[in-house]
Amino acid sequence: MRAVDIVAQSYQRQMSRPVYLDNSSTTAVAKEVLDEMLPFFSDDYGNPSSIHSMGDKAAKAISSARKRISLSLNCRPSEILFTSGGTESDDLALIGTVANTGRKKIITSSVEHSAVLETCQHLRSSGYEVRILPVDSDGRVSTDDLADAIDEDTALVSVMTANNVIGTIQPIRELAKIAKDHGSLFHTDAVQAFTKTDIDVVRDGVDMLSISGHKIHGPKGVGALYVRNGVKISPIMFGGGQERGIRSSTENVPGIVGLGKAAELAVSTMNDDVKRMEKMRNTIIDETLRIRDSYLNGPREGRICSNAHFGFRGVKGNDLVLALNKMDIMVSAASACSAGSTEPSHVMTAIGRTPEEAMSSLRISLSRYTSAEDTDHLLASLPSAVSSLRRQ
Amino acid sequence: MRAVDIVAQSYQRQMSRPVYLDNSSTTAVAKEVLDEMLPFFSDDYGNPSSIHSMGDKAAKAISSARKRISLSLNCRPSEILFTSGGTESDDLALIGTVANTGRKKIITSSVEHSAVLETCQHLRSSGYEVRILPVDSDGRVSTDDLADAIDEDTALVSVMTANNVIGTIQPIRELAKIAKDHGSLFHTDAVQAFTKTDIDVVRDGVDMLSISGHKIHGPKGVGALYVRNGVKISPIMFGGGQERGIRSSTENVPGIVGLGKAAELAVSTMNDDVKRMEKMRNTIIDETLRIRDSYLNGPREGRICSNAHFGFRGVKGNDLVLALNKMDIMVSAASACSAGSTEPSHVMTAIGRTPEEAMSSLRISLSRYTSAEDTDHLLASLPSAVSSLRRQ
Repeated sequence: MRAVDIVAQSYQRQMSRPVYLDNSSTTAVAKEVLDEMLPFFSDDYGNPSSIHSMGDKAAKAISSARKRISLSLNCRPSEILFTSGGTESDDLALIGTVANTGRKKIITSSVEHSAVLETCQHLRSSGYEVRILPVDSDGRVSTDDLADAIDEDTALVSVMTANNVIGTIQPIRELAKIAKDHGSLFHTDAVQAFTKTDIDVVRDGVDMLSISGHKIHGPKGVGALYVRNGVKISPIMFGGGQERGIRSSTENVPGIVGLGKAAELAVSTMNDDVKRMEKMRNTIIDETLRIRDSYLNGPREGRICSNAHFGFRGVKGNDLVLALNKMDIMVSAASACSAGSTEPSHVMTAIGRTPEEAMSSLRISLSRYTSAEDTDHLLASLPSAVSSLRRQ
Repeated sequence: MRAVDIVAQSYQRQMSRPVYLDNSSTTAVAKEVLDEMLPFFSDDYGNPSSIHSMGDKAAKAISSARKRISLSLNCRPSEILFTSGGTESDDLALIGTVANTGRKKIITSSVEHSAVLETCQHLRSSGYEVRILPVDSDGRVSTDDLADAIDEDTALVSVMTANNVIGTIQPIRELAKIAKDHGSLFHTDAVQAFTKTDIDVVRDGVDMLSISGHKIHGPKGVGALYVRNGVKISPIMFGGGQERGIRSSTENVPGIVGLGKAAELAVSTMNDDVKRMEKMRNTIIDETLRIRDSYLNGPREGRICSNAHFGFRGVKGNDLVLALNKMDIMVSAASACSAGSTEPSHVMTAIGRTPEEAMSSLRISLSRYTSAEDTDHLLASLPSAVSSLRRQ
């Protein structure tokens, strides 16, 4: 595409919608998802616990969403608990189970989401031993390290399916096998991976798995936790006894309906979407690495289709995000959960980046709605944004 | 209204929307509320933690909602924490603060919502002493009882503003004063009362107060907790550090926007709405008590405007709910949180009703959108529904 065309397109775009390449932070609710949610706000708004027709309609909608989620993970509907999001799912998976095992050790990795790491920190202060496994320079956990660390006092192992910052896919099946061999529970935070990698909780031998609505073109404020039948889980929130007594609170009916639809919708076209995103992601990596003094963070292979993560020597990631923002391109310097932070990301430190390198991060994250036009616009704008910041 | 007209109207209604008189279970999202929420699903869907324009827009929307809630309670915006609903607000208020007081006793009442009672039960199992104050036959807590029970080891007193089953309004200001005099925290679950009674956290001397979106024509899956500046509160969910580190999880932006709008909207017409609901409620009470062997549960005075709660000797509440449901009238036998339960409500037991009386309960709950037509339809249908069940 000629520069003049790109400028024209860019101008036109500024008159319309921004180029949103921050899909690991959050995604737009899909039209089909919102359409299914809408009736449950002001028409079919009954409380699922009510025994009248409107309550019944709400309860049926929740059942249907539970079924959809279970199909997308290959589990039974009764193994799905709805929560307020990925964070609550992670918290519930860890805090809700470890005491029931009678064991006192928890193993996780150095690149987990803060929902897991901070919960481990909380459990450490409650008397649990927490072992944090290192990762290699690609951000990958080693099965040997887990095999060395695990013992018969290990209550639970929690390793994410794909990393939220640099996209590294972990060897979940192998890690889960090691956990199982020691009678330890295995939990995985699949918030980033769900609908972008092939997940099958039975095949993978996972005991618990967290997902979130707003990362898969569903709504914010809703998530789910798969809990394998037989895993003893206790509530972390107490009240009316909804969700089999494990997650009290009036159910977020429109949110749950939206999560169910978002999962169904994403899984139905997943194979094609993943291939298309991988191709775009590879183009972004190839083109961006042509910028002088740039480097990729995370692996080339075994990386989630939606993630590209770079460093540019001498450029601050936050400055680059703001420069691109002026061009109506939305990306992140780190994960949104730690955006605005002046501390280097723990993920960057874990893969051996210096603090300076860590602060120079740029994360570009795609969705199945990302178009070639979007990535063209990014690739046409990024080199000049980097140069301009380097000149300052 | 003549019977023939009522039948005609009833027929017409069955062709349209049901008569919804179960507003203490949940409410319809107001049109104005949904309108403000909608852009945040698929257009302005940024993550509030992102530093780009779309993140900024979401963060500003949350600020605006926080301001609206604070105005409705007379507190500072920084004293509002957003949660996933009333249950989480109650849980956070109790679990998040008691350990920080260094005291070991908690006082609550026998008519609290299960979100408070079950949380107290959990805290009891963690080593806290829990004193449950009795109520009188109207469901009211006595200030003398609190004064007798409280001591210098009391960490927290939690008494609801208005009861969810029988509508009794508690003497919150007096109870809060007693708590304050002993250096104890005072929390109130105002989920039912908010926007239906005059609440002013400063005037009332309340340290913490819980509200929920879906009880005030806002969305399900969102609530808030007022925490007075100076109260030391710790998180019960761990993660990315949102909500000043107290409530981690990507913010439910549309939900929070909806809660803010719902509060603003309800408070703006509250005085008139309450008067109108009181009048309708009184008519319902007067007319219903003309049914043979019926009685009112809860007080005539000091009762929330939206609640009427009856017993009908020889009639099972659940049967009556289902009979009215066939006439397209939605009401409850108990609170929705324990609907379908075959156990008598703890509130009914607490006010001295026999198990048989407790199981014969019918709760009719209004909203500001309830019309005289709705209550006419109820009052025309109720006597025959009761008679018919008594004949069986």
